[in-house]
This record gives sequence, structure tokens and C-alpha cells, in this order.
Amino acid sequence: MKIGIMGYGNLGKGVELAVKAAPDMELAAVFTRRDPSSLKLQTPNVPVAASAEAEQWKDKIDVLIICGGSATDLPVQTPRYAEMFHVIDSFDTHARIPEHFANVDAAAKKGGKVAVISCGWDPGMFSLARTYANAILPDGHDYTFWGKGISQGHSDAIRRVPGVKDAKQYTIPVESALKAVRNGENPELTTRQKHTRECFVVLEEGADAAAVEKQIKEMPNYFSDYDTTVHFISEEELKRDHSAMPHGGFVIRSGKTGADKEHTHIIEYSLKLDSNPEFTTSVLTACARAAYRLASEGQTGCKTMLDIPPAYLSEKTGEELRAHLL
Amino acid sequence: MKIGIMGYGNLGKGVELAVKAAPDMELAAVFTRRDPSSLKLQTPNVPVAASAEAEQWKDKIDVLIICGGSATDLPVQTPRYAEMFHVIDSFDTHARIPEHFANVDAAAKKGGKVAVISCGWDPGMFSLARTYANAILPDGHDYTFWGKGISQGHSDAIRRVPGVKDAKQYTIPVESALKAVRNGENPELTTRQKHTRECFVVLEEGADAAAVEKQIKEMPNYFSDYDTTVHFISEEELKRDHSAMPHGGFVIRSGKTGADKEHTHIIEYSLKLDSNPEFTTSVLTACARAAYRLASEGQTGCKTMLDIPPAYLSEKTGEELRAHLL
Repeated sequence: MKIGIMGYGNLGKGVELAVKAAPDMELAAVFTRRDPSSLKLQTPNVPVAASAEAEQWKDKIDVLIICGGSATDLPVQTPRYAEMFHVIDSFDTHARIPEHFANVDAAAKKGGKVAVISCGWDPGMFSLARTYANAILPDGHDYTFWGKGISQGHSDAIRRVPGVKDAKQYTIPVESALKAVRNGENPELTTRQKHTRECFVVLEEGADAAAVEKQIKEMPNYFSDYDTTVHFISEEELKRDHSAMPHGGFVIRSGKTGADKEHTHIIEYSLKLDSNPEFTTSVLTACARAAYRLASEGQTGCKTMLDIPPAYLSEKTGEELRAHLL
Repeated sequence: MKIGIMGYGNLGKGVELAVKAAPDMELAAVFTRRDPSSLKLQTPNVPVAASAEAEQWKDKIDVLIICGGSATDLPVQTPRYAEMFHVIDSFDTHARIPEHFANVDAAAKKGGKVAVISCGWDPGMFSLARTYANAILPDGHDYTFWGKGISQGHSDAIRRVPGVKDAKQYTIPVESALKAVRNGENPELTTRQKHTRECFVVLEEGADAAAVEKQIKEMPNYFSDYDTTVHFISEEELKRDHSAMPHGGFVIRSGKTGADKEHTHIIEYSLKLDSNPEFTTSVLTACARAAYRLASEGQTGCKTMLDIPPAYLSEKTGEELRAHLL
């Protein structure tokens, strides 16, 4: 199947690698809002086109993987391109998913296309873990922990503090909370009890470290509800030690069964990722395969990973899956 | 939806509890090969019928959950009843799944019914974990560890040793192997390096403990490839300390991405179950809901959990799932 990539940042580059690793896929084109001639792809002989010209590729691309941001790009791009192509996105603003779903569904149905939104790991693989675990153990408690990993949003928030030149922020799950959940204790956990935040900050010359630290730690929504540690380091140290994009997390459901609810079961799904964008795009690419299959059955409209038979994500046949992975 | 249970052992009793906990299900009948009047159900006012009479219930039951054993019961029962009802089973002889699938598929298509085979946790939830992880990270290694938990097959094997009155066997994953896998070391593990076996044995009066221990430890297939520990205990101790049916395990995939495969990702799915049969039947019951929905779409034939959209297992609507679990 022929894949198109819309947007060539961290996600776009990750999709390119994942498509290269998939024997049943071919990268047909990359679209960008920048000057197409400025892009240097990792794959030889793949055309780069202006995003405004995407419509001309309607018959040359099966699935378009949209690699924009959830805040402003995807709410516009996904409905727009869902009329022209089967599309995949990683829309991750949880509270706005129902609205995004409705917009994309209308567009995809109008174009007779399949769209799969909110692919990735949360939403995505973590949503699957929560849905399966809730269906199996209806009487129970859900816990989601994130980290250890870099939060882009929190790093950006620190960078907006006056006196800060650059920064990276790690979200870290609290080990004792994880342990209590795994023991089936069903703890009621406050925000502070679930995660800590660790910040590595490069100051502007002459900035007041104590004032910067205070402003970070007291920042509402981002840091004030957490135990936060701030480390001041040099620009070289930040580059050397904190340039990677690791992330991960844990979805745990603790549930009960039995005539007197005497049996506890713990279901845990966890990810430990060296590269958040490369893992996310590996999921997006598997979803592109599923979208193509759903479309070939005549389906149209918006889906999420919760609507997709797991086998559709795999390049293996049903026979192979039953013989080797079931 | 109206559920029937075929067979009233540990699994049948577990299904009964899971159906009771499901607001959208009703237990319509329990079928047994024993004298129906000898069965005492936990649910009031549910009829018990002879399994030979099941056909008379064709119009009164939507989904029949077949709670027999994989060795001799299910290969006969599932194809037979798949002509009359939508059916669910927990067929777990991995090597014979393709053959069982073909038989059940033919029968279900003949009857215009949906059958879902090999539901439970392995095969079942562990198969899902393997399939998703392989689809996302095609370049990687799979590891499945079982335990700590009671293996029925190994306990039975010990009971067949002359001089043994009763026994329970625990399968235990080797902690250092788990750790190496989680570290992304991709170790090549022998059978002995993955699991140990711990046996609790009650001797017949006058039996030779040393001879029994030797015979257990040297038993081919079951024990000779493992580090095995044998404890001799009294009948009272076995009853008091080893009557529960805990189990669980770990599915881990370690995979690589990146232009130079420089990024390692670890996906882990684990279960810690107080009651193996009650968890298994919670999965079977969720699959019954999915079978009913697939059938209401006009589908027929044999499926596995790999073919079922996750949302179909849940009693929640698509809207609820997108708003709360995605």
C-alpha cells in the first residue's frame, strides 16, 4: 500500500522509518508546509510536495499519515484530508476527542474514506489496555502512570519562564504508589502521590536561579501540585545528557471476582521507550495498514484503535497469527 | 443477551459469576453430563438440563459458553454446538488450534452462527499482547513467562507417580531472566533458564520419599529440563496452603527502531491472578458479548480474539469508551 506523510518533523521522520521497515508498504510522497526543496528525506527517490498540492495526489496515495500537532494542526487537517484519503492521526487532547471524532467522521463518510484518529500510545495502546481490562474486570480500579520520560508540554512551560534559556522536564511515577497499586491495595492517590517532576534548566546569563526555581515550582497546573526538583546545568550538559526523547508508563487495573469478591486480579500494561516519536509512529504505521484493510472491506467513517480487530494491524495473515502468535 | 453454560466445573462456575456481574446478560440455562438434579447452582431459578437436550434450547439461548477440557471435550463439543448456537470456548492446545479453527469454522458457517475459540489468557489476552507488540515493533524478540502459578497438567503428572497421594506444582519465572529481558538484552534463554518448578507432595503411607523425588525430577517433558524443588508435606498442609488457584505471567516484546536501530522499546503485559478459572471465565464472558455483536452484524464462522474489535468486548458504547477510556 502507498503511504503519504503530511508534515516532516519528529513524527514524520518516524513514520518514514516505520514504512521503510514494513515489507507491505511504500512511501509515495511527503507533504510539507515548508519549501519542499528544503527537505532532505532519509529515503531516496521519494517526492516532496507542498501540502497545498496534496489533493493532486488523491489517486496516488492510499493512506495519508498526518503528523501534525493536536492543538491547532490536526483539528483542521484531519477532517480536511479525510475527504481525500484514508487518514491516520495521533490526536491526543483527550477532552476533545469526541468533537474531533464527529468532525472527522462526517468528512470521511462524505469522501467514502476510513479515518483512524488518536493512534499512538496514550491515546492508543494505553486506551486498548484500559478497554480490555475494564471489559474483563468490570468491578475494579484503573490507574495510569506516565514516565519516566520527557514531557514536551512541561519543558515548553519552563522555557517560558523569564531567565530560562532552555530546559527539559522528566515526569517520574512514584515507585511506592506503583507498588501499592500492584499489591491490589486500590489506593486513592492525589496528583502529588502519583508523579514527581524533575527539571533540568539552563539559565540565561545573569538570571536569578532562586527566582526561576520558585517560579517553576509554583506554576499552577504544571508544577504546583507536584513535588518538583530543579537542577541548573550548562547548555552543554543539557545537550549531552538530555537530548533523547525517552518515555513510557504503566496502565494497571486491579479488579475483583468471586461470589464474595474474594479474588483480586492485577492486569498491567507497560511501555519503556527509548524514542517516544519513533514508537508513536510505529503505532501510526500499523494503523495505516488496518485502515487500508477496513477500507478494502467497504467500511467508511472515523474509527479509533478500539474499533479495529488486532489482526488488521499485523502484516501476518490470519493463518500465520493463529499458528504462531495465538 | 441470554447465556447458556455447557459444563459446570471450575470454569462453568466462573462463567456463572461473570454473567451475574454483567448488567447486559442473563443466565438462561446450565447443561451438564451429570444428573441435572445433582447440580446446585449459585444463581436462583436457573434451569439445569442434560447436555443431550441442548438442541431443544436453540431458540432460548443466544450464546453458549462451552466449559470443557481441551484434550477430549472441546474438539467434539465446539463444532457440534457451533451449528446450534453462537459459541465460546477456551481451547488451549496451541499446536492444534489451526485444526480446531477449521472444524469449528465449517460448523458455524453451516449453522449461520459465530464461534469464538481459544478465549482466556493464554491463548487469549497473551495472544493479543503478542500480536499488537509484533505489529508495532516488527524488528524484535518475544518472551512469554508463566507464573507464579499452579500448573494443573504438572500437578496431575506428579499424582501419577507411584507413592504420591496428592500434589500441587507451581511454575515460577526466573527473576534474573525476566530482568535481562526487561533490560532489552535479548537473551537466548533455555527452558531451564526461564522457569523453575516447585512441587508440594503428599506421600502415600510407607512410600519412599527419595524414590518419589527422583522420579519427579527425572520425568521427561514435565520436569527433567527444569530446576525442580520437591517439598513433602502433610495432607492438611496441602489443603490449607495450596488449595487456591493463582496464576499469571508476562508477555514481553523487546524491539528496535531508528535509522541505525539505535532505539530499544520494551512492551510488557502481565497478569497476577488470584483465581485462574475466574479470570479465564471473565474473558470468556466478555467474548460472548462480542460474539453476539458480531452475529448481529450478520457475521458467521469461527473467530479468535485477534479478529474482534476491542470495543465489542465492552458493555460500554463507542461514545462512552471514547469519552472515558480512550
